[in-house]
Amino acid sequence: MMGVQEYLEILRNIRDCAFATVDCTGAPAVRIIDVMLVEEGRLYFCTARGKNFYAELMANPAVAVTGLNKEWQTVRLMGRAERLADGEQKAMIDRIFQENPSMEGVYPGEARYILEAFVIAEGRLEFFDLGKSPICRESSSFGRAEREEKGFRITEDCIGCGTCAAVCPQQCIAEGEPYKIAAAHCLHCGLCFESCPVEAIERLDSEAH
Amino acid sequence: MMGVQEYLEILRNIRDCAFATVDCTGAPAVRIIDVMLVEEGRLYFCTARGKNFYAELMANPAVAVTGLNKEWQTVRLMGRAERLADGEQKAMIDRIFQENPSMEGVYPGEARYILEAFVIAEGRLEFFDLGKSPICRESSSFGRAEREEKGFRITEDCIGCGTCAAVCPQQCIAEGEPYKIAAAHCLHCGLCFESCPVEAIERLDSEAH
Repeated sequence: MMGVQEYLEILRNIRDCAFATVDCTGAPAVRIIDVMLVEEGRLYFCTARGKNFYAELMANPAVAVTGLNKEWQTVRLMGRAERLADGEQKAMIDRIFQENPSMEGVYPGEARYILEAFVIAEGRLEFFDLGKSPICRESSSFGRAEREEKGFRITEDCIGCGTCAAVCPQQCIAEGEPYKIAAAHCLHCGLCFESCPVEAIERLDSEAH
Repeated sequence: MMGVQEYLEILRNIRDCAFATVDCTGAPAVRIIDVMLVEEGRLYFCTARGKNFYAELMANPAVAVTGLNKEWQTVRLMGRAERLADGEQKAMIDRIFQENPSMEGVYPGEARYILEAFVIAEGRLEFFDLGKSPICRESSSFGRAEREEKGFRITEDCIGCGTCAAVCPQQCIAEGEPYKIAAAHCLHCGLCFESCPVEAIERLDSEAH
């Protein structure tokens, strides 16, 4: 399994990632935003004070980030974006422009200081490798965030009939007492859950439903 | 300016777009999801009944979609996702698998029917061409959604000092009485707004701030 820095570097290498926020009406918003720097398990980006993205982050720091690379790997980050302190802004914007030279073309000269730097220093992470067969997933967290279990689990109520294993599109359920889902290869599609004749399969994050 | 179908086809051609929702805790979620079909100004996608994405959409249909293509064009769609009626599900899932043959590898045989089809038939659209200099943006809407004006406007309070035009990183402010922002080329960075010595520049979507 990879470490936090490696997951964040996948997003940095994709660079143009999708950043989702919740606007003042409670609706989702999503934009393509550059991941400017990844360092010591933290992800840095910036936006201009005039943009709605800036206003949304200042009102509600919850942010979700994702991207897909050419190897069909995707990382999802669910975290909090913090605006850097006033005294750290100028140095970080200068650092960002040094690491990302194309920014000078968009915000030449002093115009760069209309940008403000944000950091994501805590969050949950999901990694999904669609380039492998069967697909492969991992989850993790960083900062003070806790890792979250998702998907499904076969309980002791299992009668060993094998229906779940037969219907699984990824063939990731192994025979046993009870049968067992290989969580790393599960799509979370729910077909086993729906097909079990004795309702022996439960959701791991049932509060979301 | 492009029509709705053309904007949606940009998303279809990107195919792996970022779909943002709001989860039951009010936090943003974002995932890479395939745009499966675009037809008659509507965008179709699908997801499995076991996934959190499905639960989120059923609880709150507000969805935002974006993607970036190889020509550095990006489309943002802010709309509502409707689950197709029961009687239309099977035909649409079959149609989706016909148009997207790689789906059979992930959900072989009858497993495809754990998926349900959704349509986005109304929403607001923003198009942003970063491959051009100056950058170029357009906005539009479809279904019952109304187009939204964003960015900044120079009011009659303008004293013609030219400060705004001098600071604009995209040089998209023309001299005049009042001075005028070329909205199609504006970054919405807010530098003119902050720099105007007489506060003659206003936000067009002030309710968001």
